[in-house]
Amino acid sequence: MFNPLKRALLGALLPSVQAPHERLTKLTGLAVLSSDALSSVAYATDAMLAVLVPAGLLAVGATRPLAFLVAALLVIVTFSYRQTIHAYPHGGGAYIVAKDNLGIVPGLVAATALLIDYVLTVSVSVAAGVAAVVSAAPGVSGYRVTLAVMFIALIAWGNLRGVRESGRMFAIPTYVFIVSVGVLLVVAAGRAAIGHFPVSAAPPQTGVVAGVGLFVLLHAFANGCTAMTGVEAISNGIPAFEPPEADNAAKTLLIMAAILLTMFLGISLLGAALHVVPHEQETVLSQIARAVFGGRNVAYFILQTATMFILVLAANTSYADFPRLASILASDGFAPTQFTHRGDRLAFSNGIIVLTLFAIALVVIFRGSVFRLIPLYAVGVFLSFTLSQAGMVIHWRRHREPGWQLRALMNALGAIATAGVLVVFVTTKFREGAWVVIVMIPVGVWLFLAIARHYEEANRQLSLDGYEPSSERPDVMVVIVAAMNRETVEAMRYAVKRCQEVRAVHVDLDAVCAAEIRRGWARWGNGATLEVLDSPYRSFVEPVLQYVQKVEAERPNRLITVVLPEVIPHRWWQTLLHNRWSVQLRAALINRPRVTVLTTVAWPLAE
Amino acid sequence: MFNPLKRALLGALLPSVQAPHERLTKLTGLAVLSSDALSSVAYATDAMLAVLVPAGLLAVGATRPLAFLVAALLVIVTFSYRQTIHAYPHGGGAYIVAKDNLGIVPGLVAATALLIDYVLTVSVSVAAGVAAVVSAAPGVSGYRVTLAVMFIALIAWGNLRGVRESGRMFAIPTYVFIVSVGVLLVVAAGRAAIGHFPVSAAPPQTGVVAGVGLFVLLHAFANGCTAMTGVEAISNGIPAFEPPEADNAAKTLLIMAAILLTMFLGISLLGAALHVVPHEQETVLSQIARAVFGGRNVAYFILQTATMFILVLAANTSYADFPRLASILASDGFAPTQFTHRGDRLAFSNGIIVLTLFAIALVVIFRGSVFRLIPLYAVGVFLSFTLSQAGMVIHWRRHREPGWQLRALMNALGAIATAGVLVVFVTTKFREGAWVVIVMIPVGVWLFLAIARHYEEANRQLSLDGYEPSSERPDVMVVIVAAMNRETVEAMRYAVKRCQEVRAVHVDLDAVCAAEIRRGWARWGNGATLEVLDSPYRSFVEPVLQYVQKVEAERPNRLITVVLPEVIPHRWWQTLLHNRWSVQLRAALINRPRVTVLTTVAWPLAE
Repeated sequence: MFNPLKRALLGALLPSVQAPHERLTKLTGLAVLSSDALSSVAYATDAMLAVLVPAGLLAVGATRPLAFLVAALLVIVTFSYRQTIHAYPHGGGAYIVAKDNLGIVPGLVAATALLIDYVLTVSVSVAAGVAAVVSAAPGVSGYRVTLAVMFIALIAWGNLRGVRESGRMFAIPTYVFIVSVGVLLVVAAGRAAIGHFPVSAAPPQTGVVAGVGLFVLLHAFANGCTAMTGVEAISNGIPAFEPPEADNAAKTLLIMAAILLTMFLGISLLGAALHVVPHEQETVLSQIARAVFGGRNVAYFILQTATMFILVLAANTSYADFPRLASILASDGFAPTQFTHRGDRLAFSNGIIVLTLFAIALVVIFRGSVFRLIPLYAVGVFLSFTLSQAGMVIHWRRHREPGWQLRALMNALGAIATAGVLVVFVTTKFREGAWVVIVMIPVGVWLFLAIARHYEEANRQLSLDGYEPSSERPDVMVVIVAAMNRETVEAMRYAVKRCQEVRAVHVDLDAVCAAEIRRGWARWGNGATLEVLDSPYRSFVEPVLQYVQKVEAERPNRLITVVLPEVIPHRWWQTLLHNRWSVQLRAALINRPRVTVLTTVAWPLAE
Repeated sequence: MFNPLKRALLGALLPSVQAPHERLTKLTGLAVLSSDALSSVAYATDAMLAVLVPAGLLAVGATRPLAFLVAALLVIVTFSYRQTIHAYPHGGGAYIVAKDNLGIVPGLVAATALLIDYVLTVSVSVAAGVAAVVSAAPGVSGYRVTLAVMFIALIAWGNLRGVRESGRMFAIPTYVFIVSVGVLLVVAAGRAAIGHFPVSAAPPQTGVVAGVGLFVLLHAFANGCTAMTGVEAISNGIPAFEPPEADNAAKTLLIMAAILLTMFLGISLLGAALHVVPHEQETVLSQIARAVFGGRNVAYFILQTATMFILVLAANTSYADFPRLASILASDGFAPTQFTHRGDRLAFSNGIIVLTLFAIALVVIFRGSVFRLIPLYAVGVFLSFTLSQAGMVIHWRRHREPGWQLRALMNALGAIATAGVLVVFVTTKFREGAWVVIVMIPVGVWLFLAIARHYEEANRQLSLDGYEPSSERPDVMVVIVAAMNRETVEAMRYAVKRCQEVRAVHVDLDAVCAAEIRRGWARWGNGATLEVLDSPYRSFVEPVLQYVQKVEAERPNRLITVVLPEVIPHRWWQTLLHNRWSVQLRAALINRPRVTVLTTVAWPLAE
């Protein structure tokens, strides 16, 4: 019943013998792997200004130095990651680098931080994409959450079908976005040069920091740093590049960083110059575009559409990263094995489903608001940045290749800078929501370790190393008799033929039925004795369980086999018309602390 | 894990040997069985006026004649039901009377109508109870739906615990309500007599019907008839009375009808005299009480509280009736057998749960509004009235006791009157919502008949009448091997010991695991051959299913036993860490159109 629907939604089954992936050139690689990083300019300036503006006009003047500080940090992180690319040419995610160099627990900390941030990337990017839509079409403002959930469902559906990372298709929105923002910046510069710049009537800003608290500045800086999320994507995706993979990836990283730097600085400085006030109903980018392009015209709508698309693409990158990391963790025994299983369409379906559920939950809880989600965001990113860079320092120290000291110094600089940002993050955004992430990380690590312990313990108990099978135990069969009918008769014949000691039991829930069974037993009981069990509390399971325990006590060296005759209706809805006692009984018996054999004799009804 | 919570909520298990019920005197019987009927005066006048008032002041003048018409109808129905009491001294519900005298389909029509109306009684009574609360405390108006759902949950919880029909406890709110309304009417009459009547400045009403459409009048009449819902309760509950049961029940019915008549006429005429305008925020009864008592004083609050309580009691009567009727239908084979099963506390838990879910759904869909629920209400009541009275006519004709003609005439009059009301109901309220009930009734009857057909067919297929067991079939055992471990080894030993032909199969989803099994097989395979099945689409179930079909084709005269080794984790959350393939495989194999034996060898983990 369910299967045709599933096939229609997901497409035909795909065989495991899959086509080899196409490799990425620098041009397509930039588009595919940088949407997460580049799209963050659509919300980072908003988040920064949202803190500064309420603190007064003077604080807005702080936008410029803060933007340059974020840019400087970006340069450090870029060069630091460029080294990771060369050291881990097969893909150096923070989990792998941290686990290799710092140990299992730091590795798991990085993994938890990454998983949390993949979920947040989906929520924040989709919320920002919806904000772009709402800015262009204020009428749909009331449907924010619905739109966001629809976007996430759409991305999840595409990924369950197994979206191939088709470079060309994904390249279009990314390049349209880059070009649109570029045009925006050039037009703004042009209009400023000829003195046609729309707004500049604000009072000249003197003494930038004067009168503004340090906390506000740090908080705004932390929010601005969300522009750096996604920078690590290229170093995770090295194997997807054309050979020489590492060189191409490293060059792409530099190009991306240059573009990101230009866009973030341009938008932040323009926002400051235009005295843009960020609010829920219209994004900073939309306000700037309206001012620079002179209203909601074609150029404006192209930019807003490209913004929405690149944000959806950014969410989509998490749909590649989360399931992949979950499957790596599962292979290492830290996460449920189900994450390693590829679905009908070769996608890691379980990871996709878990990511979707969490992302939708976040969007619903935070009512689709970027401003409310931002305090949780990027804590995980900077924690994994720090662990990854610190791991690289240890890596260089261990291998001691020529010139290792300089490389170690570069990574140490990266680690210190990102650790500093992390401290700023936690202190300024703790009460706003960062504490949730701080609490979740040890919980996640504890969970991964508990899972690993369970798998190790299960493997130990099931291992054949030095296993001596116990001597064979003959069995006692207990046949559950529910009614005097063909199914019971066949189950009794099955048992009597295969076992020396057969005991038939009936739970007396209905005097008429019990009397009927007693009457018919002489003829149909196959010579076995029948025991009718009382059930003062009308439970079916309890008396059987007690009886089985009694038999076990009487026959300690026997294997107990409980035979459950089960009538199987022809259609699914008919199962609603029959008692589910055998299901309950199975669940109760299977959980006993002794090896038990449960034999179901299934009797299918014809219609 | 779940059980202690369940015990805390529902109380200790109750043994089947229950204490015999206390019998009801006329005084307690009136309280217990008439809350449904008497409480309907809390909304019937509202429903009537809600149609008349928008049609203009003249229409309000129509209140008086309409109220008298409803009263006359009540007299007819009361005397008609009085005869049912004497004819069916063991309880004559509409289902039983209609089925006995008119046949199965009319019986099922009556049953469906009653079940629908029991659900509506809960929804309407609770909504009206909430309206009484909102009238007295307008501040809680926004929590209408929440309050209603809480009331229903509370009643359901009480019934799942097994509320004993304790006459005295239930008598208090009923009698407080009767006395309060009585005081209200007496005070109003007194104040009118001494000329202190609060409002009467309205223009004198001439030519009552002039200018008011017939449709409006019929519609108002139909709404007024909701006052008669619940009149049948006493004839259903005869066996609960002290002997002589039928006489006591008949007398109680007359007393109840007299009280109901007085209250309904009094409230309706007062409402008309005071020009009360019914609206969602305050009930008619509340407006009258405020006018007569002179504000929200002690007398007012006593009346409102009693109104709320009697409405909750009225909802509670459906919690006795619905599960009882469902269990009668189930005993007759028309409803799922689960409805006959008494829960831990001797209540028909399944019926209570189904009723609760439907009632909550209605309250949520109709946003807890009495005015929106009323159009659906009472269609079922009058349909079952009509069928029951018509059934009685046939009953008298069949038995031909002395004086049967007069009795038949009385019931015929009742049947014709209620049929007339039914026609008015359907025509005037069809578009407002009555069509839902009209559609549901044939659907319900069809469902009951389909269920009965299924049970008959299943009984036929399972019957031992003339059953000749087939000759014994030896079995082929197919052991599913998931990994090379102790559990597999024990399952193989189990199979090889008990069966001549054992086939081990492994589904190749992971090359490493398959290689390990192949390596270990010589040592641990117990001499059986191993087949490794390819699974190009990564499905576990599909290859096994195909293999079993192949074995069946090769060995048509053998019984197939599939042995499923199952590792049982120690704690419930650990089951999330293991593949549920054996569960999926069981579900797939058990649904095959041939008798199959499924043997689970359960291997419990120690921790």
